[in-house]
Amino acid sequence: MRPSGARPDTDTWCAAGRRPATRRSKRSPEGSCPISSAAAADPGASAGTARLTLEACPPILLPMAVEPIPSATGLGSSLPPASARERYEPLDSRSVVEFVRPVLPAAWRAEEIGDGNLNLIFRVFDEHDRTVIVKQALPYLRIVGDSWPLTLERARIEGDALALQDRLAPGLVPRLLGYDADRKAIVMEDLRSFEVWRTELNAQRAYPRAAADVGRFCGQMFMRTSNLLCPPEEWKGLLARSVNPELCAITEDLVFTAPYVDAPSNDVEAHLTAEAEALRNDRELVEAAAALRHQFRTRAEAFIHGDLHTGSVMVSTSGTRMIDPEFAFMGPMGFDSGAVLGNLAMAFIAHWAQGHEPFAATVARDARAFWDALAGSIAELWPADEPWRDRFIANLVTDSAHYAGAKMIRRIVGLAHVSDITGIGDPSVRRRAQAAVLRGGRALVCAPEIADLAGLWKLAVEAV
Amino acid sequence: MRPSGARPDTDTWCAAGRRPATRRSKRSPEGSCPISSAAAADPGASAGTARLTLEACPPILLPMAVEPIPSATGLGSSLPPASARERYEPLDSRSVVEFVRPVLPAAWRAEEIGDGNLNLIFRVFDEHDRTVIVKQALPYLRIVGDSWPLTLERARIEGDALALQDRLAPGLVPRLLGYDADRKAIVMEDLRSFEVWRTELNAQRAYPRAAADVGRFCGQMFMRTSNLLCPPEEWKGLLARSVNPELCAITEDLVFTAPYVDAPSNDVEAHLTAEAEALRNDRELVEAAAALRHQFRTRAEAFIHGDLHTGSVMVSTSGTRMIDPEFAFMGPMGFDSGAVLGNLAMAFIAHWAQGHEPFAATVARDARAFWDALAGSIAELWPADEPWRDRFIANLVTDSAHYAGAKMIRRIVGLAHVSDITGIGDPSVRRRAQAAVLRGGRALVCAPEIADLAGLWKLAVEAV
Repeated sequence: MRPSGARPDTDTWCAAGRRPATRRSKRSPEGSCPISSAAAADPGASAGTARLTLEACPPILLPMAVEPIPSATGLGSSLPPASARERYEPLDSRSVVEFVRPVLPAAWRAEEIGDGNLNLIFRVFDEHDRTVIVKQALPYLRIVGDSWPLTLERARIEGDALALQDRLAPGLVPRLLGYDADRKAIVMEDLRSFEVWRTELNAQRAYPRAAADVGRFCGQMFMRTSNLLCPPEEWKGLLARSVNPELCAITEDLVFTAPYVDAPSNDVEAHLTAEAEALRNDRELVEAAAALRHQFRTRAEAFIHGDLHTGSVMVSTSGTRMIDPEFAFMGPMGFDSGAVLGNLAMAFIAHWAQGHEPFAATVARDARAFWDALAGSIAELWPADEPWRDRFIANLVTDSAHYAGAKMIRRIVGLAHVSDITGIGDPSVRRRAQAAVLRGGRALVCAPEIADLAGLWKLAVEAV
Repeated sequence: MRPSGARPDTDTWCAAGRRPATRRSKRSPEGSCPISSAAAADPGASAGTARLTLEACPPILLPMAVEPIPSATGLGSSLPPASARERYEPLDSRSVVEFVRPVLPAAWRAEEIGDGNLNLIFRVFDEHDRTVIVKQALPYLRIVGDSWPLTLERARIEGDALALQDRLAPGLVPRLLGYDADRKAIVMEDLRSFEVWRTELNAQRAYPRAAADVGRFCGQMFMRTSNLLCPPEEWKGLLARSVNPELCAITEDLVFTAPYVDAPSNDVEAHLTAEAEALRNDRELVEAAAALRHQFRTRAEAFIHGDLHTGSVMVSTSGTRMIDPEFAFMGPMGFDSGAVLGNLAMAFIAHWAQGHEPFAATVARDARAFWDALAGSIAELWPADEPWRDRFIANLVTDSAHYAGAKMIRRIVGLAHVSDITGIGDPSVRRRAQAAVLRGGRALVCAPEIADLAGLWKLAVEAV
């Protein structure tokens, strides 16, 4: 989904500060409607504040009058109105220091980090070396300039998503410290002591708790934003509020469309030309991918992350954080769990092809730990009056398999590749891994029904 | 969905007036995005007018500022704000005459028709005996009084739905003449020369074009409001605009929940007590129904009617109209096609059980004509760049079978019954028909995959 699959090292952040205990103690009990309870437990949160203030987490569902959803009007351009654009101005490493004072009173200097292509990212320090991160949406893709306009709406989406995730899966996302609607900037916990999971997997460094944390994150978000737990009225409000057309269109194009046509955006290594063409002529696969695109568009099952590959997971020995939820929307649960499993399958294939059998086995155990934690969270939260849990899990395995396959294929013949594979120096080993990913992906996308994780994993990796 | 399955005869309306040719000629060409093209072709339509004016069809997607979606805020009550409630006042047969003058200048008298339980319905005459229908939402269920409050929001939903259906499936719904947001009243074409299809089927009167018209209506609405034809941004706007929590909750309860538990709302004839209990103890069926409820809630495939039984279809020798779309929302297509087929299956079973084999054969031909017209419309509108039409049709058959089965079961052991069955005078014949409907419904709900309409129909009716 990002121009480059490899996340720059400057994108790794450190933890700063802890949530006050009083906040956590107000959280709603297990089992009651998570969304409405969270709002009810913190009445102040529903008063939308356009300016950044201390502890000013945005409400999950801002009143329409404060922040209308431009895309929900259906009336042409989804750009914010001119008045909002006029108030917008890019931050720089001086102005951002003033900007964060409400949440970091002793702030005194800032560094711009990140590649700054879609967003400006700053790390701001205070006099005691405590830090926060400021992420400001850019109104265009910087490498192309203002000829490629982007809506600033995604900053609100990311802020809303972080706030919702922090309430429903606490401790598994960076803490949101504030959101400024005018400047389209969010302020959040710095993750400086964390590393990108993909980088660590590539370096054969194991993080024993990471996979289970990702599974718990998925299970908690899936269940707590599903209408299995939420009253229909609340749930439909979340559905309406969470449409995310611009970024969903990117996914639809890059994951489900471009790899199956000869799209100019595809980046195919020369030695894979024949494989890529065979794939485009594989009628069963092309049909299955198109049907899957329709499912991605129409199955509003839960508030999903929307881009949950191993580069969106920050790991440390003490905890795990899912980052960058700007693709979040009400979509199929299997798209998130499939992203995790598809990316772990690629890590497995890469290590196996390179002769790193012991670490490949670690990755396979990660896949199992992820799935067990996911299924465990679902079982824990499953409502007693829904008599179809086994069927639900079975459907989720099959959906995860399909989406995992689509994610694997697009990382070989689509626009954005993954460093697990591109980082393999020996061309013949790399080619073997690429072919195995394509075959595994094809088997998954075309699979009819899959009984359990073992069946999914076998299809995904058996070609290496 | 309605308190009584039998629609009173006073609910049958007659056609008055024709659409000016200039309006029709502006319609968008086949193949382009139907929703945005319709809006673009008629720029005036996007200026929301709260007062009733001649030709004042509401825009499909009113700007949020004019008519916010209360349910989309997610902030508690979905009742309109106090100011709107204060402007609301019920019409009577005197005030309604003044009310319709903008569209019927020579109006002089009105009759209240309909049972007036959920809505007030008036027929207004002018001096030349031309008529229009006014339907005003009541803020509570009249038989219970204001202890059962209902949102007036459904008048907007019905007005929006009629406007959208009239643009995308012209001539197959009553023409919408106006909508008054303050009074929660819509003004529409009178269908006085039409009859309720269910009544005509019961009386063994055939309407050769009706079934195919219903099929064309479904096919056109399914395709033109799907994201197969609409750009994602437009489609997501329609999704956000069309959430309909209150009436969806009624369907979820009455169709998918109550029949499978010992709900007080269920109305089970004494001789069916054992069958109803066996059904509640049928674990496979109960699980399948719960999974189907989840699909109904989460599969936002197209703007569906939401209550398309044979009592929602008005027939005449010259045309067919689908009425009462207050349950409309973005849901699974198979729920509409399943409703039609499930209700035709009950008509078939009722006639077959009563020895009316020739008319039963007519009903079976209606089911075939419905499906062929539906599949034909889909084929006609199917976009060339979606390579999975056969798979789409196969999925639609299976989904239709599941929903048809749920609709059949709930009409025997749920709250609302159908006159096809309740009208069978001989108790032993009625009981045989009821048992056949339950067995057919069970077979459909539990069916894995169904290849074609013949397979669906066989499961539905073979028990009689």
